[in-house]
Amino acid sequence: MKHFIHTGEFSRSELETLLHNAIANKGLRSNVLAGKSIGLLFFNSSLRTRSSFEVAIAQLGGHPVTLEVGSGVWNLEFREGAVMNADKSEHIKDAARVLSRYFDALCVRSFPGLKNLAEDMQDPIVEAFRKYASIPVINMESALYHPCQAMADMLTIRERFGKTEGVKVALSWAYHIKALPTSVANSFAVAAHQFGCDVTIVAPEGYVLPAAVMNQLGNVKLSHDLNELKKQDVVYAKSWGSLENYGVPAPESLKSWMIDLDKLGPATFMHCMPLRRNVEIADDVMDSGQNACYDQAENRLHVQKEIIRMVMG
Amino acid sequence: MKHFIHTGEFSRSELETLLHNAIANKGLRSNVLAGKSIGLLFFNSSLRTRSSFEVAIAQLGGHPVTLEVGSGVWNLEFREGAVMNADKSEHIKDAARVLSRYFDALCVRSFPGLKNLAEDMQDPIVEAFRKYASIPVINMESALYHPCQAMADMLTIRERFGKTEGVKVALSWAYHIKALPTSVANSFAVAAHQFGCDVTIVAPEGYVLPAAVMNQLGNVKLSHDLNELKKQDVVYAKSWGSLENYGVPAPESLKSWMIDLDKLGPATFMHCMPLRRNVEIADDVMDSGQNACYDQAENRLHVQKEIIRMVMG
Amino acid sequence: MKHFIHTGEFSRSELETLLHNAIANKGLRSNVLAGKSIGLLFFNSSLRTRSSFEVAIAQLGGHPVTLEVGSGVWNLEFREGAVMNADKSEHIKDAARVLSRYFDALCVRSFPGLKNLAEDMQDPIVEAFRKYASIPVINMESALYHPCQAMADMLTIRERFGKTEGVKVALSWAYHIKALPTSVANSFAVAAHQFGCDVTIVAPEGYVLPAAVMNQLGNVKLSHDLNELKKQDVVYAKSWGSLENYGVPAPESLKSWMIDLDKLGPATFMHCMPLRRNVEIADDVMDSGQNACYDQAENRLHVQKEIIRMVMG
Repeated sequence: MKHFIHTGEFSRSELETLLHNAIANKGLRSNVLAGKSIGLLFFNSSLRTRSSFEVAIAQLGGHPVTLEVGSGVWNLEFREGAVMNADKSEHIKDAARVLSRYFDALCVRSFPGLKNLAEDMQDPIVEAFRKYASIPVINMESALYHPCQAMADMLTIRERFGKTEGVKVALSWAYHIKALPTSVANSFAVAAHQFGCDVTIVAPEGYVLPAAVMNQLGNVKLSHDLNELKKQDVVYAKSWGSLENYGVPAPESLKSWMIDLDKLGPATFMHCMPLRRNVEIADDVMDSGQNACYDQAENRLHVQKEIIRMVMG
Repeated sequence: MKHFIHTGEFSRSELETLLHNAIANKGLRSNVLAGKSIGLLFFNSSLRTRSSFEVAIAQLGGHPVTLEVGSGVWNLEFREGAVMNADKSEHIKDAARVLSRYFDALCVRSFPGLKNLAEDMQDPIVEAFRKYASIPVINMESALYHPCQAMADMLTIRERFGKTEGVKVALSWAYHIKALPTSVANSFAVAAHQFGCDVTIVAPEGYVLPAAVMNQLGNVKLSHDLNELKKQDVVYAKSWGSLENYGVPAPESLKSWMIDLDKLGPATFMHCMPLRRNVEIADDVMDSGQNACYDQAENRLHVQKEIIRMVMG
Repeated sequence: MKHFIHTGEFSRSELETLLHNAIANKGLRSNVLAGKSIGLLFFNSSLRTRSSFEVAIAQLGGHPVTLEVGSGVWNLEFREGAVMNADKSEHIKDAARVLSRYFDALCVRSFPGLKNLAEDMQDPIVEAFRKYASIPVINMESALYHPCQAMADMLTIRERFGKTEGVKVALSWAYHIKALPTSVANSFAVAAHQFGCDVTIVAPEGYVLPAAVMNQLGNVKLSHDLNELKKQDVVYAKSWGSLENYGVPAPESLKSWMIDLDKLGPATFMHCMPLRRNVEIADDVMDSGQNACYDQAENRLHVQKEIIRMVMG
């Protein structure tokens, strides 16, 4: 059984094959999923992920079924042995086993609760589906990882620079009015390291990635200095919340971490979106020719078609 | 015009043909619904029903359109002659006639309101669709009945025991923190009687099924003693609310009606799901080899494909 | 790039061709959209629009992806240069560009906010999609227009009277408990004028259509007298809110504007639905043979298939 939950579970060679196929098969329509149905289970909102997965499945000839937990679909419990006398009507143990009887693969989006750090670090929801589903599980962004985004990011860098090896990329923390998950930052950093990029993480003091992620990054460079951005080929901006003050929004003093053209310098700009203009990122960056965000978004479609084909054999 | 609203409206022979075809056509893909669209109208949440109907329709080559009343779709009035100056924007009379112009069949889920017993006993919403739609209507669980579940249940018993005739089944009331509809219990009891099972209803005093349902059950056995469960081939657990204290949750003193392996004995365990582990049903039952719930869930898909084919000729 | 946002942007000859094709191709199934996906983006609820667009796309062999803003999809900002530090997570600039990478066309429903008249008169949301999308945009009802409804209305008149030229139609204001948009009334009046109908607007004093719409209507007749209805071939009833007391419901003294058979006289009755029975329209009209509403609703499907084919070349 193959799942796609974290790029770190695949070799660089396997991931390179995915990128290679994604480029080769852009625009391809096929019937490899004829007669097959894939469930898309959302615990959280989505625009890109939902659209690109539905279109990917349709372009492969399959049928997507989109399910929204808590809105149309019962709330789901994930704790083992729970006495379910509160707001959850069904256990993931049961939901995963049932959905495995209907679908040929299951894609899951489940953000972290941002209340209990230790629990979130276990990536409990997507891991419960991995454990109890008997069909391939694809991670559409979990508490810890967003591997489909990271593969789209790698494809975008490959297309812009003809390579990923040695490309200088900064993961730059950005201000946001809410405390956000670390998942996109985690997966980008891990994948960039796997693909041989020269990675620098630029963030205010106290804004670190989880230790379990840092351990996968080798001798990654760390900086608190936004001037580092001007030395890069790529600046990947992303807000994430403090792990110390977990779930607490950043202080307003960090508003100055919004990326504008002046801070960006000549680098290609990347972001997973959605993003808040003039809070995280200034209009001048978004509306400039340096903005690669729309290509990243499009590349979601191309890589996901290959991820689906890979896990489904 | 054929509808599928209650198994009691079909002969045993018709229902046996459905089961026969469901077994014969498991896994079949076809194009009998090519160019056809089927509406799935949900007044209430769903995981199994929504997934299994969407997949069933896709496997038959048709296009499912899922609509959620009150979330994306206007709230619907069902009372004849209503002066619609409150929270309902459209009448089922009109919605049913309009949807009949777009779809080739319409599947409806509408739980009881649990406030007005006399009104719920009329099964007003699904009956309004039967009255005003000019296309086949399939009941995806109404105030009174859940016939697709009951057919999946009969298929599960048939597969486990090679027959339904004479199989000893207990419908066992289970504790729940909410007052639930009687629909699943009603349809299971009626279908089990139609298929010749030896039915016993085991429930606390005061937890009865509606008289209109009891009248369809012949000389069904009634018991208040959980020790009856150990004498059965099948224990079908299901919570339902009191008809006397309508809409009021069961007293905590009935928590002891949770089914665990000790109460279950050697019987095959069945439940329609969703279920609250360690409230309705103990983990030891759910995670045991006696649990047939996942087969029941899968059989939803198989029987529904045949129900759709039957009503659409 | 062709969009379908307002009938006034098309010549009568282009619109006549649409109607001609809609009649000729009723019931047709095709594969012109094979391998293509169309996004259906809803900022507001829908029954007819959602169902008829999904079915239209499926009948043409394409794949519809339905997205609900604010429920499953991020809330979207439309103001240029906004500092996005409030409740909107993404800008339409970005959403439109991203969705253009996935879909082959985008259909948008966005009612007016009914708080800021000047802003609503700019039709800001659908116009932002027109500006930033790089794929055809179809208006599924905006702040100002509902052109798909108007085309279905014209088709219905054509079918009932064999022509539209010279057919006497009254657009009759109807009472409603809420202040409603003018979009349906605007598009009906404009299209009826474009198709040569003899149009009278019958409304209480103070209930006018926007000046920008009136300017498109030539020498349209205006009346405050419900007795005008009895002189018509068609009465098209529709409530809309006051532009002076913008967003404020009509006074109860206007309840007498509910249309019943007595007021209607011998005319064919039309309404876009949804409608509140016995508030806007009496049961006696809805359940009479003069009611053409269900044909109007069905004609949505037929005209939309042609609108999709037209904008997609």
